[in-house]
Amino acid sequence: MAMTMTQKILAAHAGLDSIKAGQLIEVNLDLVLGNDITTPVAINEFNRIGVDKVFHKEKVAIVPDHFTPNKDIKSAEQCKCTREFAYKMGIKNYFEIGQMGIEHALIPEKGLAVAGDVIIGADSHTCTYGALGAFSTGIGSTDMGAGMATGKAWFKVPEAIKFVVTGKMQPWVSGKDIILHIIGMIGVDGARYQSMEFVGEGIKNLSMDDRFTIANMAIEAGAKNGIFQVDEKTVEYIKEHSDREYTVYEADADAEYTRVIEIDLSTIRPTVAFPHLPENTRTIDEVGEVIIDQVVIGSCTNGRIDDLRAAAKVLKGKKVNPRIRAIIFPATQKIYLQAIREGLIEIFIEAGAVVSTPTCGPCLGGHMGILAKGERAVATTNRNFVGRMGHTESEVYLASPAVAAASAITGKISSPEEV
Amino acid sequence: MAMTMTQKILAAHAGLDSIKAGQLIEVNLDLVLGNDITTPVAINEFNRIGVDKVFHKEKVAIVPDHFTPNKDIKSAEQCKCTREFAYKMGIKNYFEIGQMGIEHALIPEKGLAVAGDVIIGADSHTCTYGALGAFSTGIGSTDMGAGMATGKAWFKVPEAIKFVVTGKMQPWVSGKDIILHIIGMIGVDGARYQSMEFVGEGIKNLSMDDRFTIANMAIEAGAKNGIFQVDEKTVEYIKEHSDREYTVYEADADAEYTRVIEIDLSTIRPTVAFPHLPENTRTIDEVGEVIIDQVVIGSCTNGRIDDLRAAAKVLKGKKVNPRIRAIIFPATQKIYLQAIREGLIEIFIEAGAVVSTPTCGPCLGGHMGILAKGERAVATTNRNFVGRMGHTESEVYLASPAVAAASAITGKISSPEEV
Repeated sequence: MAMTMTQKILAAHAGLDSIKAGQLIEVNLDLVLGNDITTPVAINEFNRIGVDKVFHKEKVAIVPDHFTPNKDIKSAEQCKCTREFAYKMGIKNYFEIGQMGIEHALIPEKGLAVAGDVIIGADSHTCTYGALGAFSTGIGSTDMGAGMATGKAWFKVPEAIKFVVTGKMQPWVSGKDIILHIIGMIGVDGARYQSMEFVGEGIKNLSMDDRFTIANMAIEAGAKNGIFQVDEKTVEYIKEHSDREYTVYEADADAEYTRVIEIDLSTIRPTVAFPHLPENTRTIDEVGEVIIDQVVIGSCTNGRIDDLRAAAKVLKGKKVNPRIRAIIFPATQKIYLQAIREGLIEIFIEAGAVVSTPTCGPCLGGHMGILAKGERAVATTNRNFVGRMGHTESEVYLASPAVAAASAITGKISSPEEV
Repeated sequence: MAMTMTQKILAAHAGLDSIKAGQLIEVNLDLVLGNDITTPVAINEFNRIGVDKVFHKEKVAIVPDHFTPNKDIKSAEQCKCTREFAYKMGIKNYFEIGQMGIEHALIPEKGLAVAGDVIIGADSHTCTYGALGAFSTGIGSTDMGAGMATGKAWFKVPEAIKFVVTGKMQPWVSGKDIILHIIGMIGVDGARYQSMEFVGEGIKNLSMDDRFTIANMAIEAGAKNGIFQVDEKTVEYIKEHSDREYTVYEADADAEYTRVIEIDLSTIRPTVAFPHLPENTRTIDEVGEVIIDQVVIGSCTNGRIDDLRAAAKVLKGKKVNPRIRAIIFPATQKIYLQAIREGLIEIFIEAGAVVSTPTCGPCLGGHMGILAKGERAVATTNRNFVGRMGHTESEVYLASPAVAAASAITGKISSPEEV
């Protein structure tokens, strides 16, 4: 039976020659991931199962990134519980603050995700590693607990939408604009429980960081996973970051898709998602005058080096509008260090932006940039649901780092072409 | 009548030729300071007075530094209230995040405190500017509100203790060790409602950053203010940072002091204050084995460039113990930028430390590094009261940046001489 990229990976991990959409299968896991919010709950589930060790000390990764450095006593207790479990179990890939970064930027950087992997993570944006040709998906803490104990997980095999990518982006267009454009087109449930498979000759024009951003937001279209065909850039990235073996899976030529959508990169404009759903997109030409209070550049979606470079290109020699709080979060310590060496952090600080240590921070309304009633933020994060970044009467506009940086200068949603 | 340094400044600001300890006087203020915690309360008091403008738009400074970038919705609302007041009143010295730093590092850096000033601030560590030969002291939000409205404040003229400083510090001894040594000697109420006046030939061996640290912690001995005699270093600092006129006041030769204490800098060892009072001091040679969980380097006490240099000197080429969360906060954006340019931030990140944007953060149990039950921190902050950095069953050990950095490497309280 013909299979999609995702189905091929799942079949291989289920020890089956062939699977079909809708089938229930049990697969072997290459990595089980948790953070400081989800791991304490998963530990409870793990303990209920009654085993005394994790299935594989190198195949569990725990990254305290959400409310760290500890926001308050409660988050300190959660981190403590997580840390003690990691030490007790001898989990190799526990990353203390200072050694870490935001999980979905850190895992690929540490070489813990490669093409052909099956990865589950108790965080919805675990789908990020599809950029590397892996099947990765967010699950709940219960599945994380079971996964840590057994090294296995059950799945219903997903159907898929095929995105045939062609053309080349215009200046100032990046992965964020592409995925916002797609979500605007298909809606936040447009890919519900399906794979979003990205193929085509246009893929080569996407940097790995563009692909991470696109795969990261597959969940915002309701997808089970997002996944890219593996090319030279992918292999180069994997070899640079990992010494693990990887396997490239390609969809069969006659694989079935529920839809085939062509994405011509050359037609995409910088795109902004208005409150309160990622599907409420407008091109930068259609936004009108939206006065803002805060800009957030970072997160698992857009805190990588390409993102910081784009923001720095816009902010260099410019000043953040004095009314605006511009908060920039490099996604990992390695990215932070590279940004210092490239002079990007100097540009940000000279411009009057805040540069913080890696943390999920305000993205999920955690800390380090929460909005008051009536305030508006342009953010490179992934969700703009009601109250996502603070007060239920605040607003979040999702955009690329370039648009966010331009908006920080003008104090309203702006194109980098304007500043 | 013979007067102390402090009394001379207060007399001049009261328009009196002579004043004496215990006298109630009204003085003209050169600066009224508030932060995001205290200003909202002060605004209420200001509004109750019924005036519609502040006494001087350039003599009020507001620095949102405590729970910023906004920790949560409540802190976002407090900052919003503060910001709107600053805008409405046309307060020139309102410093938005990104333009700012921790208030007591920022005010001297911005040239808003000079020798001879009388400054009140709704924050207990306002006594910091005594390093510049100013009278500065912490007051409550009510006095801040009245000060903003009238430009005046009432004081009971303080008595004083004279500290005659001689000699030169040994390697690895800094201002923090000196002030901890002094508080250990006289106790946390040893200078209650008195001035701590620092004079003597040893002053010249103290950098301005050493002096800021010492004056900053005068309040931890219960003092009304700490103040240094002005010398060439002070004048150089003032001229570099301010274009305001300054006035040097010296104590009369026959001024009365309640005590005269000689401090021979050459005899002071690196000093640590054990929980739960700054007076519980031990020299580094007496600390024994104290295993720790976290190190905090920064705050209004020790987040200046000298402090970061000392920490970097210890951490260069070394690694933070993987069990330890080492969190470093440059005190202002300017210091952060300078630290980047000197390569200090690279050293910290390579060592595995967290480098955060300027904020008061964990010092007061605010955010960005809160302790769980049973956890211990070595911190360069100023108070180690019960629960100061988090859980009431956590512990804070106060130390210099060099000792804190050494402790981050070993995972226990350690001397920089050991690592």
